[in-house]
Amino acid sequence: MPTRKLYEVIAAEIDESIRKGVLRAGDRLPSVRHLSGSRGVSPSTVFQAYYLLEGRGLLRARERSGYFVAPCGGKQPPQAVARSEPSGESMDLDVSDMIFRILDANPRNDRAGLGSAFPSPLLFPQDRLGQVLAASARTLDPWSSVDDLSTGNLALRRQIARRYMADGMTVSADEIVITNGALEAINVCLAAVARPGEAVILECPCFHAALQTLERMAIRAIHVPTHPGDGIDLGALEQAIVRNKPKACLLMSTFQNPLGSVMPERQKQLLAQLLQTHELPLIEDDVYGELHFTDRRPPAIKAFDTQGLVLHCSSFSKWLAPWYRIGWTVPGRFQDAVVRQKLTLNLSTCGPTQLALASYLERGGADKHLRRLRQTLARQQQRLLLAIGEHFPDGTRVTKPLGGYMLWVELPEHIDTLKLHGAALARGIVVAPGPIFTGDRQFRNCLRMNYGHPWSDGTEAAMEELARLMQDPSVRAS
Amino acid sequence: MPTRKLYEVIAAEIDESIRKGVLRAGDRLPSVRHLSGSRGVSPSTVFQAYYLLEGRGLLRARERSGYFVAPCGGKQPPQAVARSEPSGESMDLDVSDMIFRILDANPRNDRAGLGSAFPSPLLFPQDRLGQVLAASARTLDPWSSVDDLSTGNLALRRQIARRYMADGMTVSADEIVITNGALEAINVCLAAVARPGEAVILECPCFHAALQTLERMAIRAIHVPTHPGDGIDLGALEQAIVRNKPKACLLMSTFQNPLGSVMPERQKQLLAQLLQTHELPLIEDDVYGELHFTDRRPPAIKAFDTQGLVLHCSSFSKWLAPWYRIGWTVPGRFQDAVVRQKLTLNLSTCGPTQLALASYLERGGADKHLRRLRQTLARQQQRLLLAIGEHFPDGTRVTKPLGGYMLWVELPEHIDTLKLHGAALARGIVVAPGPIFTGDRQFRNCLRMNYGHPWSDGTEAAMEELARLMQDPSVRAS
Repeated sequence: MPTRKLYEVIAAEIDESIRKGVLRAGDRLPSVRHLSGSRGVSPSTVFQAYYLLEGRGLLRARERSGYFVAPCGGKQPPQAVARSEPSGESMDLDVSDMIFRILDANPRNDRAGLGSAFPSPLLFPQDRLGQVLAASARTLDPWSSVDDLSTGNLALRRQIARRYMADGMTVSADEIVITNGALEAINVCLAAVARPGEAVILECPCFHAALQTLERMAIRAIHVPTHPGDGIDLGALEQAIVRNKPKACLLMSTFQNPLGSVMPERQKQLLAQLLQTHELPLIEDDVYGELHFTDRRPPAIKAFDTQGLVLHCSSFSKWLAPWYRIGWTVPGRFQDAVVRQKLTLNLSTCGPTQLALASYLERGGADKHLRRLRQTLARQQQRLLLAIGEHFPDGTRVTKPLGGYMLWVELPEHIDTLKLHGAALARGIVVAPGPIFTGDRQFRNCLRMNYGHPWSDGTEAAMEELARLMQDPSVRAS
Repeated sequence: MPTRKLYEVIAAEIDESIRKGVLRAGDRLPSVRHLSGSRGVSPSTVFQAYYLLEGRGLLRARERSGYFVAPCGGKQPPQAVARSEPSGESMDLDVSDMIFRILDANPRNDRAGLGSAFPSPLLFPQDRLGQVLAASARTLDPWSSVDDLSTGNLALRRQIARRYMADGMTVSADEIVITNGALEAINVCLAAVARPGEAVILECPCFHAALQTLERMAIRAIHVPTHPGDGIDLGALEQAIVRNKPKACLLMSTFQNPLGSVMPERQKQLLAQLLQTHELPLIEDDVYGELHFTDRRPPAIKAFDTQGLVLHCSSFSKWLAPWYRIGWTVPGRFQDAVVRQKLTLNLSTCGPTQLALASYLERGGADKHLRRLRQTLARQQQRLLLAIGEHFPDGTRVTKPLGGYMLWVELPEHIDTLKLHGAALARGIVVAPGPIFTGDRQFRNCLRMNYGHPWSDGTEAAMEELARLMQDPSVRAS
């Protein structure tokens, strides 16, 4: 990882002071001259640090008075969503139709994106990518269509391996299989470890595509309690393993969709040991790991896997090039099975876009792009939290993820988000209702909200409109 | 279809005369002056026609003596491979491991390609495609990643629809779903019509990926007798439908892999009626249709489908851009189910390459490229047939497909092609043994041979070496 600039170090310290409550909403910050003197840095360095934190919504400047901690404390909703309590029994899934009905109803041209699963495509370095794609298009070796079968382009796999190395995880290019996005990676990994009628453990709530994929493959699901802050409950997970003899576990350990939870490093380590004890494969969906607001990328469970039991999946779709549809898996001891799944599914992944991504990563603009993207997302999270605090009803609780672009909202019990989805849709607003994130339609008073789209007056108006709808009798749970 | 040039018309007439036996091997053709006078065309038109036929290997020029029909008749092996006679019972498949063992053993850098499933990538207009990809890379609408979910880019779907229209099949852009190659199209179509434990009808022999896909999905297979010339036997097919109550039929009606068979138009029509009578979905794999050596593209069964029962699948991989991995399906009444399969499998297909193909097709170079490609393949087929006739043992029989780039070779009964595969591999030669093309390991004395690679001294030497190995006691059936 590149060394941080001085102003970033200072900003991170202030950020931590705010998070720990040393500085609280409304507190005035030291003057620029004072901090500059006490830290022995130039005034412009302090200005840059304050400006960065203002951008993230943590500070507010008042004319002639200096910088103050932003009033998030007052306006932000409480962050204490309860741990889920699913039954822990395995079940046949029958939710895909319901989920599709909801997704199909959503208009394609929704640009506010509050209910979307995708970040705004405007956040990505499209011009730069277009240039490298254009350059690689002219130099493609025609034999690569045969030679890169079916694990994917070697140059790209090397670049992916390098990024893992920089983040402290040792993966060789040979262990990587390129796929059409992470969803395909999850599909081929699942097919490699579980057959129809067998069971797989999921978080609760979990990403709806995981439910739909299992249902499509006629694989049963076991939901395990999941904490909105720390992720899956390891004690409950072990019970479920012993009781249900699942074939695998499928989860997101970092910035989970829809909760935004991150398993602490120690928990990840313990989970890796648990897998080893029970010889249980884990499919780890790590598509959001690059989008951390903290100093370093949270490690993947794969980093603690000494037995090849983790089938790690990720992609470029959430932080670089969604339209390229390039993902990958590091399937450990299941590599042969995964490659065979890929071969009989669609042979191989699109060539020119793989080359372009390899070339983009080689040239080294990725980290700069990511720093900017993370700042943008952190700032947009603040905007969303402030808007929720300002407009949504009392009793609303939220998660405050340390990365990614989605958070989880628990509304007062009497609000039915399936009804809210319909009412909002009639006004051109898309939301993602809680029931699409479990196999048994729980979380009727919950929403997943996306802050991956540039905040606009339209977003603010949509939030106000949503809040008004929440007061409407038509969205009350019956 | 553009009107044919005069020399092409004359060449086609002579071609037909040779095929019908009016002109036979060694026959001298009318002098250029004579034919020019009798047909009222310029001598250069006749020259062009003769030159074209020479290019295809049908004529040979002898200095000062004029043009003669090439001695294919004498050296070509007989074309009378027998109709297959499978049991017609449904079976659980257990062949994928065996097929993978064989395919995995093959070296990636085999450039002769006799045993390959792919055409040579050198046959494709790579420079032109690189140019249009480079141009489209710079103009990609970032929102297309969302807007083109998940049926694919509209401009490309329009171009595909136009090509069908030009060939007499009416398909609208809305009916097309873009996939990562035709194999993925077949996968999503199969998943849309059949569940684990149910049965699907296949040809005998059939493409090994169809067997592997069914096995992966735990779908049972029913092989139906198939004629090396005319394709699947309709009487046997109807019996199998009545007896086994399959959920679908999966076949290639045009230039079938591995036989090269083409169902006559009338049979295709009858098959469409049969589907209607039994309300049976048909997954039609039509990836080779564009590679016809005849005047027009053989119609797809889809062209006779009035009930939306045919899930038609095709791709650009066999004639334009294998490394792009772009295919599609026209799934008829199963469209919603297919789109949902695609969504939960991998969401959507790579964007920039779809744009590039749309742009390539709009600009109109495709037909010219195809004419050249078809001539090349027809010529290479002649070379392969001549080499088989010259080198392979007496009793060898072959198919002589009217398109595509693969033919089927039936060797004398005592030769075991699984053993031949191993022996050839030790000498760096790859062959595709018959047993990988059925669920019950039939066709031990058969090979599928690929003529989609430029003929070279290396190819000729490989054919001679193969013929020598066929005499070796180690490849005798035990």
